[in-house]
Amino acid sequence: MKPEILYGIHPVLEALRARRRTFHELYVIDQIPRRLQVILNLAEVMKIPVKMLQRLRLTATAGSEHHQGIAASVSAYPTQNLVDILNKTCSKEIGAFLLLLDNVLDPHNLGALVRTALCAGIDGIVIPQDRSASPTPAVSRASAGAMEHIALVRVNNLTNTIKRLKEQGIWVCGLDQHAARSVFSMDFKGPVAIVIGGEEKGIRPLVKKTCDVLIRIPQQGPVSSLNASVAGAVAVYEAFRQRCGFG
Amino acid sequence: MKPEILYGIHPVLEALRARRRTFHELYVIDQIPRRLQVILNLAEVMKIPVKMLQRLRLTATAGSEHHQGIAASVSAYPTQNLVDILNKTCSKEIGAFLLLLDNVLDPHNLGALVRTALCAGIDGIVIPQDRSASPTPAVSRASAGAMEHIALVRVNNLTNTIKRLKEQGIWVCGLDQHAARSVFSMDFKGPVAIVIGGEEKGIRPLVKKTCDVLIRIPQQGPVSSLNASVAGAVAVYEAFRQRCGFG
Repeated sequence: MKPEILYGIHPVLEALRARRRTFHELYVIDQIPRRLQVILNLAEVMKIPVKMLQRLRLTATAGSEHHQGIAASVSAYPTQNLVDILNKTCSKEIGAFLLLLDNVLDPHNLGALVRTALCAGIDGIVIPQDRSASPTPAVSRASAGAMEHIALVRVNNLTNTIKRLKEQGIWVCGLDQHAARSVFSMDFKGPVAIVIGGEEKGIRPLVKKTCDVLIRIPQQGPVSSLNASVAGAVAVYEAFRQRCGFG
Repeated sequence: MKPEILYGIHPVLEALRARRRTFHELYVIDQIPRRLQVILNLAEVMKIPVKMLQRLRLTATAGSEHHQGIAASVSAYPTQNLVDILNKTCSKEIGAFLLLLDNVLDPHNLGALVRTALCAGIDGIVIPQDRSASPTPAVSRASAGAMEHIALVRVNNLTNTIKRLKEQGIWVCGLDQHAARSVFSMDFKGPVAIVIGGEEKGIRPLVKKTCDVLIRIPQQGPVSSLNASVAGAVAVYEAFRQRCGFG
């Protein structure tokens, strides 16, 4: 697997903390800002070689201007197996809490959903190989480094995955603005997977048909459409609220 | 007041629908895509002059590449008075539902919060003159045109506004990640204003101190920070959920 170049404070710092990637080398801007010191201290403890670069060289190395003075050559992103996640969650009394993303093609939306998912205690995110943005360094940055901690699974066929989850007793809820049922009338206090579609096309028809139930976020007003990552956050947090014991 | 140039399908279309701005002229790309037809039909009915421009001319006129083939010269953004909003809401049995933004400097975050607020039935958004992004065409675009419909108030001093709202019996809740109280333990079924701070600095200390209560969004995991517009959406939607009669 080819090494990747992570860039930006949060992605580099969270990857160091998560200890899931091998760090080959750290690149830091030659006039080191104070806020990077925590990263350099960690690098010293972990014996990671550090190279100082001028801004333009760092930008070229990172492949982006949004490096905030820091980048790192690291091993490929560690995706996980669904089986491992399900094994880990089977000891949870309330059951698994999964997020499935279909057609989320925009790296910023993927990053935002990963960040929200980590904060809401999601056990794992499943994305399809084809109809999804990939877990790139840009997504790690958009997630404020949350991608370095979350358990992320890539599957060939999301419909087959949903069938498998249903066989395991996991209730699969698809978010669909045309659904009759409100997200607020659902009971999320059990093994549950929430399926969220992308900004443009939403969930694909076959994936939608395979869900146990379709739910919508109630909306008022003349412009009836929430941003995809906001709609996802409202659904995930409603489930989290119930699972925390609030109502 | 100087005219402004709106650009992008949603801002132009929603401004036409909202009928709050005067349209001086519409600019459309010379090879008209089919999806712009609904706007041109409206413009014809409303007798707005239409000028065809080549792509580069349209980009120069819009001051942005993100025009999607359409722009319009319109009157300045119609901000509103707090008194008018409070007068309108005093007939609502459940009372006013307001959103106050402090330190939301990023136009994308402001746009996202405006979009969410409109969908959640917020009666009005209050922003300070100084510590806020302005309601520019870029914010209208980031809000997918929701800014053209929402009631938005600009005030000189947000702390004084909060004092006035409290005198009117409106319960003012500030979102603060260090608060002891969870947003899910609040009762939002009455006159209420939610105060949300920006990505970097949150709510200013004096504004925070003036709130009736501070609340946080419960968060798990190693990276404990939601995006500002997502945290705002979770709080606003929790209030909306309760006010809709769900729990």
